[in-house]
Amino acid sequence: MHAVVARPGALSLEDYPEPVPGEGQVLVKSLATGICGSDLHALHNMPRRAELAERAGFPVIMRPDRPTVFGHEFCAEVIGYGEGTTQALPIGTRVIALPFAKGDLGFELVGFSNRFPGGFGERMVLTESLLLPVPDGVSSAHAALTEPLAVGVHAVRAAEVPSGSPCMVIGCGPIGLAIVAALKAAGLGPIVAVDYSATRRAMATRYGADEVVDPAVEAPGERWERLGVPQRRPDPTVPTELQPHRNKAVIFECVGVPGMLQTLLDTAPPFTRIVMVGVCQEQDTIDQWIAIQKQLELRYVFGCTRDEFEETFTMIADGTLDPGLMLTSTVGLGGVADAFAALRQPDREVKVVIEPTRI
Amino acid sequence: MHAVVARPGALSLEDYPEPVPGEGQVLVKSLATGICGSDLHALHNMPRRAELAERAGFPVIMRPDRPTVFGHEFCAEVIGYGEGTTQALPIGTRVIALPFAKGDLGFELVGFSNRFPGGFGERMVLTESLLLPVPDGVSSAHAALTEPLAVGVHAVRAAEVPSGSPCMVIGCGPIGLAIVAALKAAGLGPIVAVDYSATRRAMATRYGADEVVDPAVEAPGERWERLGVPQRRPDPTVPTELQPHRNKAVIFECVGVPGMLQTLLDTAPPFTRIVMVGVCQEQDTIDQWIAIQKQLELRYVFGCTRDEFEETFTMIADGTLDPGLMLTSTVGLGGVADAFAALRQPDREVKVVIEPTRI
Repeated sequence: MHAVVARPGALSLEDYPEPVPGEGQVLVKSLATGICGSDLHALHNMPRRAELAERAGFPVIMRPDRPTVFGHEFCAEVIGYGEGTTQALPIGTRVIALPFAKGDLGFELVGFSNRFPGGFGERMVLTESLLLPVPDGVSSAHAALTEPLAVGVHAVRAAEVPSGSPCMVIGCGPIGLAIVAALKAAGLGPIVAVDYSATRRAMATRYGADEVVDPAVEAPGERWERLGVPQRRPDPTVPTELQPHRNKAVIFECVGVPGMLQTLLDTAPPFTRIVMVGVCQEQDTIDQWIAIQKQLELRYVFGCTRDEFEETFTMIADGTLDPGLMLTSTVGLGGVADAFAALRQPDREVKVVIEPTRI
Repeated sequence: MHAVVARPGALSLEDYPEPVPGEGQVLVKSLATGICGSDLHALHNMPRRAELAERAGFPVIMRPDRPTVFGHEFCAEVIGYGEGTTQALPIGTRVIALPFAKGDLGFELVGFSNRFPGGFGERMVLTESLLLPVPDGVSSAHAALTEPLAVGVHAVRAAEVPSGSPCMVIGCGPIGLAIVAALKAAGLGPIVAVDYSATRRAMATRYGADEVVDPAVEAPGERWERLGVPQRRPDPTVPTELQPHRNKAVIFECVGVPGMLQTLLDTAPPFTRIVMVGVCQEQDTIDQWIAIQKQLELRYVFGCTRDEFEETFTMIADGTLDPGLMLTSTVGLGGVADAFAALRQPDREVKVVIEPTRI
């Protein structure tokens, strides 16, 4: 089949072996696939990811010396079934699914595995029990964006935002926007979205941000003062329940580059909860003493659960959540490498969807 | 007055200016002062601490070019009052207090401030409204250890340990032991205490650890398997509420040296909550990708609140909590520099209390 193949630092459109569905698996034709920020990160960190997986005690599912086909945000069409399947959905059904398939090493992430090519190729193998049918009213491109929007729902759930706490979203790429949308849907906030790009700030407003901030114009300290969360330490003579920091501020880190964490540690008010959603894959340096003094909290989140994926798709299908607000371009398989380059310029593109049925 | 004066990297017994109580403050005679691990860390990081305070937006209360008198765990005797005090406690009352006093820069930590010498000197200035009288049945040395034991209570409260979650305490110095004691008092656990030192492991058992581990003998992976918390990733086809990781494991980091955080990120099972109690003051490097993949949570804690300090002292006074189990030596002011050296050898000393009334 045709597929955009990733090797460390480079993408190329090639012939790739046809995937074959195993036990409990389904063969699908890719209809629409989102390009994720984590694909951009992964392309330049394939050897490191393998090394870190090993250190974390996890099986290495994406070896840098073997070809990988990215694409874990997708909508596809059922074209065949493996053994031991119920075949409840007729051939031709449009589906979305959590991007996991079971191989020799346990469940692997479709699109970040040498065994399970993702939606940057014409065909994929998925897990039948994870499929959700897509109703006619939802376009394939919008259905494909269920996964990144569900990552926002997951991050907001993990954040356990106290009622009335100011929420600052740092970085308004697709995941930052998904978090703004999920906060809005949950009635949380005030929501303050921060990005250098005017395009992305405007999108954050459309997804429900109460205010947007250009970090080149307003310093974090001023922002927090304005939100009523002072930078000063708690007063030891005042009982805990009367401390001004009691309603914790929440920051969502959605950038994922080295140095970002330390910037947040330096500028966050005491007792802030920082939800780490960006996927920094490089080694970073930190001065923990600042985090200790401020009693900060870091919650690292990743992906979403099955329930969150399904709930998010319900919100897309009923019109509560509009994936179209972040969609800036669609390309064929031949346009993927250029789209990766364009996505590195935040004012040009935000979310690009691939149509793998065309070159 | 006589005081042990700290300058970057060195301690010396000197004459130091008499402290003078200001508005709302009380003058006390130091009776007993614990040497804290954070004193050992601070001695070698005075310039960095000043630099980091500035970066965090906090006033620099301990300048490395000025003398500092450490000592924030103390019992003392009231010998005089400043203006605007209620003088409810008669002269001669033995007291303990949260180590804070208000100066031009707001509240400062007594013992880590150039303006407020701590209990490594003969006399101190404290805040009247923070004083607690010490009943006759409690020795000054035991009363002085209220502060480190309250740090354990604070860490356990901040941890919000789910019922039945295994708690691993890494490092059984005074703070690790205080956490074991606080977990036990709260009926949490199982409590697994980890330390290379046999002396400290034995103390952890006395404070209530359900098991102790020598990390030279048993690897973290084996330990977690044995505790029923597997290292593997969650199965995406299994609903969230049935995941084996649902009862989060909790780790208390009580060592505070560079590299320790990464070791914990590498070896912790997915979804572990790591409570950061050690006071690492050096810059550290981390690979956040592992924390992201495992969806780990880091809660940095520091000190304790007024309520926790008072509750801890109640437990000491009524015999629930025995500070004496960790107390290995008492020294005069002339023995402090040697005690610092001895405390760096974990099998020799655990908690040393200074009696500042003698040289």
